[in-house]
Amino acid sequence: MNYQGILNEIEKEIDLKNFDGKVASYIPELAKVNGEKFGMHLYTLKNGHYSFGDSNEKFSIQSISKVLSLALAFDLVGNELWDRIDVEPSGDPFNSLAQLEYENGIPRNPLINSGALVISDILVTHLKNPKKDFLAFVRQITNNPTINYDDAVAKSEKKWGFRNAALINLMKSFGNIENKTKKVLDFYFYQCSLSMTCKELAETFMIFANRGATLETGERIITPSRTKRINAIMQTCGFYDEAGEFTFRVGLPGKSGVGGGIVAIHPNEYSVAVWGPKLNPKGNSAIGMTALELLTTKTGYSIF
Amino acid sequence: MNYQGILNEIEKEIDLKNFDGKVASYIPELAKVNGEKFGMHLYTLKNGHYSFGDSNEKFSIQSISKVLSLALAFDLVGNELWDRIDVEPSGDPFNSLAQLEYENGIPRNPLINSGALVISDILVTHLKNPKKDFLAFVRQITNNPTINYDDAVAKSEKKWGFRNAALINLMKSFGNIENKTKKVLDFYFYQCSLSMTCKELAETFMIFANRGATLETGERIITPSRTKRINAIMQTCGFYDEAGEFTFRVGLPGKSGVGGGIVAIHPNEYSVAVWGPKLNPKGNSAIGMTALELLTTKTGYSIF
Amino acid sequence: MNYQGILNEIEKEIDLKNFDGKVASYIPELAKVNGEKFGMHLYTLKNGHYSFGDSNEKFSIQSISKVLSLALAFDLVGNELWDRIDVEPSGDPFNSLAQLEYENGIPRNPLINSGALVISDILVTHLKNPKKDFLAFVRQITNNPTINYDDAVAKSEKKWGFRNAALINLMKSFGNIENKTKKVLDFYFYQCSLSMTCKELAETFMIFANRGATLETGERIITPSRTKRINAIMQTCGFYDEAGEFTFRVGLPGKSGVGGGIVAIHPNEYSVAVWGPKLNPKGNSAIGMTALELLTTKTGYSIF
Amino acid sequence: MNYQGILNEIEKEIDLKNFDGKVASYIPELAKVNGEKFGMHLYTLKNGHYSFGDSNEKFSIQSISKVLSLALAFDLVGNELWDRIDVEPSGDPFNSLAQLEYENGIPRNPLINSGALVISDILVTHLKNPKKDFLAFVRQITNNPTINYDDAVAKSEKKWGFRNAALINLMKSFGNIENKTKKVLDFYFYQCSLSMTCKELAETFMIFANRGATLETGERIITPSRTKRINAIMQTCGFYDEAGEFTFRVGLPGKSGVGGGIVAIHPNEYSVAVWGPKLNPKGNSAIGMTALELLTTKTGYSIF
Repeated sequence: MNYQGILNEIEKEIDLKNFDGKVASYIPELAKVNGEKFGMHLYTLKNGHYSFGDSNEKFSIQSISKVLSLALAFDLVGNELWDRIDVEPSGDPFNSLAQLEYENGIPRNPLINSGALVISDILVTHLKNPKKDFLAFVRQITNNPTINYDDAVAKSEKKWGFRNAALINLMKSFGNIENKTKKVLDFYFYQCSLSMTCKELAETFMIFANRGATLETGERIITPSRTKRINAIMQTCGFYDEAGEFTFRVGLPGKSGVGGGIVAIHPNEYSVAVWGPKLNPKGNSAIGMTALELLTTKTGYSIF
Repeated sequence: MNYQGILNEIEKEIDLKNFDGKVASYIPELAKVNGEKFGMHLYTLKNGHYSFGDSNEKFSIQSISKVLSLALAFDLVGNELWDRIDVEPSGDPFNSLAQLEYENGIPRNPLINSGALVISDILVTHLKNPKKDFLAFVRQITNNPTINYDDAVAKSEKKWGFRNAALINLMKSFGNIENKTKKVLDFYFYQCSLSMTCKELAETFMIFANRGATLETGERIITPSRTKRINAIMQTCGFYDEAGEFTFRVGLPGKSGVGGGIVAIHPNEYSVAVWGPKLNPKGNSAIGMTALELLTTKTGYSIF
Repeated sequence: MNYQGILNEIEKEIDLKNFDGKVASYIPELAKVNGEKFGMHLYTLKNGHYSFGDSNEKFSIQSISKVLSLALAFDLVGNELWDRIDVEPSGDPFNSLAQLEYENGIPRNPLINSGALVISDILVTHLKNPKKDFLAFVRQITNNPTINYDDAVAKSEKKWGFRNAALINLMKSFGNIENKTKKVLDFYFYQCSLSMTCKELAETFMIFANRGATLETGERIITPSRTKRINAIMQTCGFYDEAGEFTFRVGLPGKSGVGGGIVAIHPNEYSVAVWGPKLNPKGNSAIGMTALELLTTKTGYSIF
Repeated sequence: MNYQGILNEIEKEIDLKNFDGKVASYIPELAKVNGEKFGMHLYTLKNGHYSFGDSNEKFSIQSISKVLSLALAFDLVGNELWDRIDVEPSGDPFNSLAQLEYENGIPRNPLINSGALVISDILVTHLKNPKKDFLAFVRQITNNPTINYDDAVAKSEKKWGFRNAALINLMKSFGNIENKTKKVLDFYFYQCSLSMTCKELAETFMIFANRGATLETGERIITPSRTKRINAIMQTCGFYDEAGEFTFRVGLPGKSGVGGGIVAIHPNEYSVAVWGPKLNPKGNSAIGMTALELLTTKTGYSIF
C-alpha cells in the first residue's frame, strides 16, 4: 500500500478553512495554541513511518494519556479494576456528574474523567513515586527518555480544576477513592499534561497495535488479551459522547484529547496520530476525525 | 383554643414504637443521639408558650439554619439573590448533583445544600466576620445570647463533607461561587452546627409568623414582603423531595433538619418546633411530621 | 377592603405591551384566540363580585379542569388515590416522560398531564357516563347548567395528542392504567375542553375557598379536610415547573391552563380568576401571574 | 483452525447449571420457550459450516431483525437516514423514553427500539407491501425462501406493546414519524417476529462478514462502505446498555434479541449465531455471551 501517497492526498484534500471549531480555552496554556496547526504521523508494523505537516511539533496529549494510565493500572491490579470502573460508553459528556451520581460513584469507563481519576487513585496507591514511575512507564513503551510533563499546563489545570474536584469528591463520598483527593488530583493533572509530537504518540501507541509488545525492542508490556480489551474500550469509549460517530466514520479504536490530538490503531497494521487543535462541539479534533476517516476510506480497510 | 390540651393529646397519641426510622449516621456526632427523644414546643402570638417532652434539650438544627442564613442574605443583597438561586422545588434529594449540572450550577432553591452554599458564599462576601456576625444575627432574632455553634459537629461535618465539596466545586466551575471553596465550606459547616432546643427554635422562627418582627422586642428584622416570600419558599422547598407531602399532610410552611428537628409556622398565629431524631427514608423526622399533622388536624386550621 | 378599587388599579398598571408571550399554538382552536384579551374576576365570601375587562368572555380552561376531576375522584375513591399518584411537585415540564419512566409510571402529582390521565382513568372506571357525569358535577358546584365542553377543542386535542398518548401508554406498560387508553384519552380531552368565563371560573373554585361547600347553596361537595389537601396540592403543583415561582410571587394556591387562564383562592376570603392568553416560556399566563401578584401585594395579604 | 474442535470445547465447558437468567416473559409466546436450549452455528468464509446442540431449532430472532431492517432502509434512503437517527450508544435500556425526550425524539441509534421504529417508519413509506417486501429481502440475503414471520408472536407483541406505543407516540409528537403509528407498529411487530435457526441466522448475517455480498450467490446486497458502517453500529450499539461489556469480552460486532439469540461477525472470517433463551438482567443471552467470549479466546482472534 502506498501509505505516503495516501497521506499526501489527505493533506491536500483537507482545507483548514472548512473547519471552524474552537481551540480549548478553559486554561490559558491551551488557549494560546495556534489553531492552524495540522500534522499526521502513521507508523506501520511492516513498513515504518509516514507523515506530513506539523507532525514533529509537541502538543498537550491530555486525555489520550488515560489509555496509558489504564494500561499501567490494568497491569498492576488486573481484573480487580472492574470492581471500581465499568466498561460501558457514557453517552454523556466527559465530565458528567449526573451519570456518576445515578450510578453511585462507579464511573462508566476508564476513559472519561471520573474513570481516569479512579485509575489515578489506583496508581497513587500502588506506585512508590506516582508521577516519576508513570513517566518511566511511558518512556519505556515509547523507547524515548525525553518524553515529559508540561509543568505550566499541569499547574494551570490544578488552578482551574473545579469540575474534576467535584467529580473526585463525589466519588470519595461514595467510597470509590482511597487516597486524599488533593494527592490524586495532583497526579491526574500531571498525567494529562504529557507533551508529545504526532510521531511520539504513534510510537507510544504501537504496543496496542502490536498485541502488547513494543515494536523496536520486542518487549512485552501488556498481555495480548489485555491489549485486546483496552482496544475494545477505546472503540466504545474513546470519544466521550461521540464514540459511536468515530466508530461509524473511522472504524478504528482510538482516543482523543482536548489538546487537539487523536491517536488510533489498526491491530497488526499500524498506529496513527493526528493533531489539529480546533475542537468540534463534542470536544474532539474536527480535522483529526476527518483525516482518519479519509485514511480508512482511502486504504479501504478498517477493523470492520 | 386549648393549645396545651392539644399538645397533650399529640404526645399521648404518638407511640414511638410505631416509628422505625433511623438516626442520621453520616457523622459520629449525630449517630450517637438517642433515637427515643421526642419533644415539641408551640409559641403563639397571642397566648405564649406550650410544650411537652424533651422540648428543652439541645439538638443540632442542621438544615433548619438555612432559613436563617437565607433571611440574612436576602436582607443584605435583596433581589440580586435570585440571579444566583431559583425558587423552585427540587423534586430531587437535597444533595443532587445531577440537577445542579443540568441547570448550569444554579441551585433550584436556597434550602437545598447547593443553594445554601451559594447563600454561604454571599454571607462570606458581605460579612466582616462571617461566623461571628451570623451568630450575632441569630442571637438577635432569638433574643438569646447563649445560642451557639457545636464545634465538634462542625469539625466532623468538615471531615466527611465530600459531597458538599463536590457541590461547591461544581458551582465554582460554573462561576457561581465567588470565594475560596474552603472558606465557604467552613462557614457552611459551622452554620449547620447551630444547637437549639425546641423552645429556642420556636422563638427564633417567631419572626416568620410575625411578619418579620420579633415578638419580644417588636424589632423589625425583615420586611413583611420578604417574610412572606421566605415563608413561600419554605412551603414549596422546605422538605427536599418531600415538600409536597409535608404541605399535603401538614399545610404549613416549615423546614426540617437531619438532626431530627422540624420547625413550622402559621402566619399571625404561631411558630412550632418538634424534635424526634429518627428520620424517614427522605431524611425528615418521621415523628415530627406526624406530630405537626396532628396539630393542624386537631386545631382544625392550616394555611389552606 | 376596597376590592374594586384594587382591581381597577391592577387593570390600569398592567400594560399589555410589556407582555410578549405567545398564545398556545399546538392546536388550531387555541392558536386563533386573540392574544390581547385580558379580564379578571374576584369573588369574595363576604362581599360578592368584582371584575374588569374581558371577564365575561368564554375561554378554554384546559388544565384548570384537572383540579375539578381530582376533587371528584378524591370524593369517589378517597385515599386509595395516593397509591397511584404522588403529591410532589414535578420540577419538570407538565408532560415529562423522563420523570414518569424513572418513577415506574407513578405520576408525581394529579395536576401534571400524567397524573390527570390516571385521574381520568379512575373516573372512567367509576362513572357510568364519564363525560356526562363529570359535566354534571361541574355544573353542580358552579350552580350553572350552561357550562359545557367545547367539541371542536376536544376533537383537535385528540388529533394532536401524541404526547398524551405516549404518557398513557407508558403508564399502561407499568400497569397504572386500568381502562383502554383510547377511552381514557377521549374523556381526558373532553374534560380539558371545558369552556368558562373568568366569572364562572371564580364561582366554580369558590368551594376551595369555602372549606368544600358551595357559597350559593351551602351544599357540602367535599370535606374540609380534603379541601385543605387539594389546596395544598395546588400550592406545590399547580404551575408545572413554575410552582415555586407562583408561590413566591403570589402566595396563593392556584392552577393555570394553556388557554391563558389562572384561578387562585385565598381560603375563607375569596376565589379569583384571570385570563390573558399569552403564555410565558413555562406555559403559564404571563399577565395573569402579574395580575395576581399585584392583588396580593395591594391587599397586603396572601396565605403567608 | 480446527473450528469444530473449538466448538466442541465450548459446548463441553459451558455448564447450563451455571446460568441462572430468565426466559423473556413479557409475552406468553416467549415465556413458554424451554430455557435449557443451547445451540451454536459458525459459518466461515473459507471452510463452511460448524455447529453443535440445538442449532437447527427455530426461535424468535426479535431485535436481531433490527440490523436487517437497518440494512434495507440504508440501501433505500442512504445517508438521509442519519437526519432522523443518531449512531451513538444509548447507555440506557433499550426502551428508554427519558433519553428520547431529552433528545427531542431523535433516537440514539437504529438498534434500540425507538431507532428501529423510525427505520420501520421509513420502510413503511418506501415499500409497496412493507411486510411482504421486507420478508422477500431477508429471504434473498439468506437464499432461503422458507424464512417466515411468527404470526402468534407478532399478535402477542401488538397486544402488549404499550411501551413501544409510548415511544412511537413520543416521536410522532416531535415530528419524527411520518406514517400512522398503528401501521408502523404493525410492521415493527411482524419484523421482530421473524423465526430462524442458528444456522439460518449465521447464513443471513454472512453478508456483513463478506463486505456486503452473499457468499452463496456472490450477489452484492449492500456496498462495502455501508457494510462497514453497519458493523460499526453493531459494535457500539448492538447490546443496549451492555454494548461495552460485549465489546470488551467478545471483541466482535454483534446483535442480541430477547428470544435468546446472539449473532456476531468477524469481517472476512465468519458469521456466528448462538441461542440460549435465559437472559441476564440487561436482556442479553447470558450463555450466548459466554459462548462467544470463549470463541474469540480459543481462536485467539477478535477484531481487536
